[in-house]
Amino acid sequence: MSSVPLNRLSHLSSHLIPGTSSMAHSVQASLHKVVVTRDFGPDVMPLLLNRGKQDLEIVVWNQDTACDRKWLLKNAVGASALLVLVTDKVDKELLDAAGPQLLVVSTMSVGYEHVDVKELAKRKIKLGYTPDVLTDAVADISIMLALMAGRIARETMTIVNEGRWPQYNWGPFLFCGRQLSATSASPTRTAGFIGFGRIAQATLARLIPFGFTDCLYISNPSSKPNPSRDAKIATDLRLNPNAIRRVDLPTLAADSDVVFVLAPGGEGTKNLVDEGFLRRMKKTSVLVNTSRGTLVDSDALAKALKEGWIWGAGLDVVTGEPGIAADHPLVKEPRCAILPHIGSATFETRIEMGTLTIKNALAAIFGENMPASLDLVRYQS
Amino acid sequence: MSSVPLNRLSHLSSHLIPGTSSMAHSVQASLHKVVVTRDFGPDVMPLLLNRGKQDLEIVVWNQDTACDRKWLLKNAVGASALLVLVTDKVDKELLDAAGPQLLVVSTMSVGYEHVDVKELAKRKIKLGYTPDVLTDAVADISIMLALMAGRIARETMTIVNEGRWPQYNWGPFLFCGRQLSATSASPTRTAGFIGFGRIAQATLARLIPFGFTDCLYISNPSSKPNPSRDAKIATDLRLNPNAIRRVDLPTLAADSDVVFVLAPGGEGTKNLVDEGFLRRMKKTSVLVNTSRGTLVDSDALAKALKEGWIWGAGLDVVTGEPGIAADHPLVKEPRCAILPHIGSATFETRIEMGTLTIKNALAAIFGENMPASLDLVRYQS
Repeated sequence: MSSVPLNRLSHLSSHLIPGTSSMAHSVQASLHKVVVTRDFGPDVMPLLLNRGKQDLEIVVWNQDTACDRKWLLKNAVGASALLVLVTDKVDKELLDAAGPQLLVVSTMSVGYEHVDVKELAKRKIKLGYTPDVLTDAVADISIMLALMAGRIARETMTIVNEGRWPQYNWGPFLFCGRQLSATSASPTRTAGFIGFGRIAQATLARLIPFGFTDCLYISNPSSKPNPSRDAKIATDLRLNPNAIRRVDLPTLAADSDVVFVLAPGGEGTKNLVDEGFLRRMKKTSVLVNTSRGTLVDSDALAKALKEGWIWGAGLDVVTGEPGIAADHPLVKEPRCAILPHIGSATFETRIEMGTLTIKNALAAIFGENMPASLDLVRYQS
Repeated sequence: MSSVPLNRLSHLSSHLIPGTSSMAHSVQASLHKVVVTRDFGPDVMPLLLNRGKQDLEIVVWNQDTACDRKWLLKNAVGASALLVLVTDKVDKELLDAAGPQLLVVSTMSVGYEHVDVKELAKRKIKLGYTPDVLTDAVADISIMLALMAGRIARETMTIVNEGRWPQYNWGPFLFCGRQLSATSASPTRTAGFIGFGRIAQATLARLIPFGFTDCLYISNPSSKPNPSRDAKIATDLRLNPNAIRRVDLPTLAADSDVVFVLAPGGEGTKNLVDEGFLRRMKKTSVLVNTSRGTLVDSDALAKALKEGWIWGAGLDVVTGEPGIAADHPLVKEPRCAILPHIGSATFETRIEMGTLTIKNALAAIFGENMPASLDLVRYQS
């Protein structure tokens, strides 16, 4: 793996108070302390650093590793804002260490499983996060994995990479996969979505020129059906008005050519894709998971691929990641293309996520409206 | 590689005269002899076999390897039609062996580099081929490779497959790639096409929901510019009327975010993508070749990837294929995703190609219009 080089330190040196224990020099009492658990890079940090010249004391964990917990507990003391990543646990201990002046926790992520939101709500600390900006990046990778699963990309790339291409004689059905696009002989295609939020809708939009004609989805059971919204989305995409239909899980499994898993993780969605679901799927269909690993039963999926219940799978997430060894049952299945959770990993998107993280923190500090904050009222008990 | 099992022989046994030397039994003089150099499988062959009951003597090379040349020269004697693959050389020797009654050569391919078209033209033998039916399959793989090259799919999949995912600590720019979709911060995207035929246009259509705004292309220099056609395509795709522009090669190299190579092979297009072209490309751009390997200078591309002139590449074709070893300069570049020429390799498309190959042959034999024949008049000297 060639790492992506970033000149991480040059943009920090002239501005910030370095994030080490020796940096604690005297500051004016009016300054807001901002603690950042990772350098967000030269395209993002100036937004904070330039503002920081006047009003902020900025402390950055400036090593290219997850922020050290002890360092964080020590440096959070007296902070107005904590800017964190998914690798930083924001719990009672950290909030106690920071102190009652803490105004905001701003996480560079769309998920907030690492944050004790109830504790934040109790203390009336705001929570900033970064939804929406990663929609397109994840929709892109969802399409990529649907294509790779159908066209057996992992198997065929491996043949080339290992120098085995010369051993194959061309034949009419050599290396044949399933075609994502509709054909004149099979002119319909059905996408199934487990979860039908923004990313799912952006994925569906990308499927239209591939000839997709139908869209089935399941939603949170507590949400009401919204057929008029579905008809509007369908019409906007030049589909038939009834092309998008909320169905039950067995119907979605049985009728979809591609199933996209795009729902939140957690106990409520655990193993939604299990052996029963996979056995109902078409033998020619593929499964794509770009949300959270916990929604798919890994052992059942490995069995489904081994025994040919479905054609293939493309995963950006796996239960237990990143602790996935080479002998993991899914890694051993050649029809399973697995990526190391790179759904939002584009420079464009990560820069927007970092920018939004800083904007959320600054807005909370200076009493402005946060661009993207989670409503914590429902967590107040 | 798990092979795709086809029950190859069961559908043949009851119908055909087996393709071995022992099959030469007496037949009625009025029967047309049809020689097929590969079993097209149970979804296709009945079209020929059922017709064959009445009017045809059918001889099939029924092994799952390239047709033996000696077998073909022997069995072609007296044939009215030869149904061939890209692996069968159709030259003067074979045509002489077949004899003057030969009406048609029907190849299951869009390319016909393996056929001596001048010799066919001289003898007024018709040539059937299979354009168009593979358009969608190749457009699909073009999009897949553009995504894979941008999102460093080969590198990141290899990390997972080799069990190295646990070694990576999450960071804001870990595994970051270039985003195919436009973003709010970079709201335009330009696709460049070397060759702008049906596959290129189908690829462009698929890019629209990714936020592509502009399309540059180069065409055969002898063809006339057609701005009104380009404006119509643009309008149909909901682009600005002047979004599609024919340009020169250096402009295409410099201004494209993704360059798709989708032109015919041969001497006229050899190494169109050379060191000069690659040096002009954006450092953030990717190159995709899904047409013929000869259009891209492999050594120059390997250098471009090694030295970071461009971000990545996705290839379905490589000069010298399938003789590509593990130490080939392009295989050694982790930013180069290489597939073993699977552009049209879907069951749906290969079945349509096989069906068209048979329809072309039957039409020529029975004096009907061939669905897809090459006009050989221009090859007559």
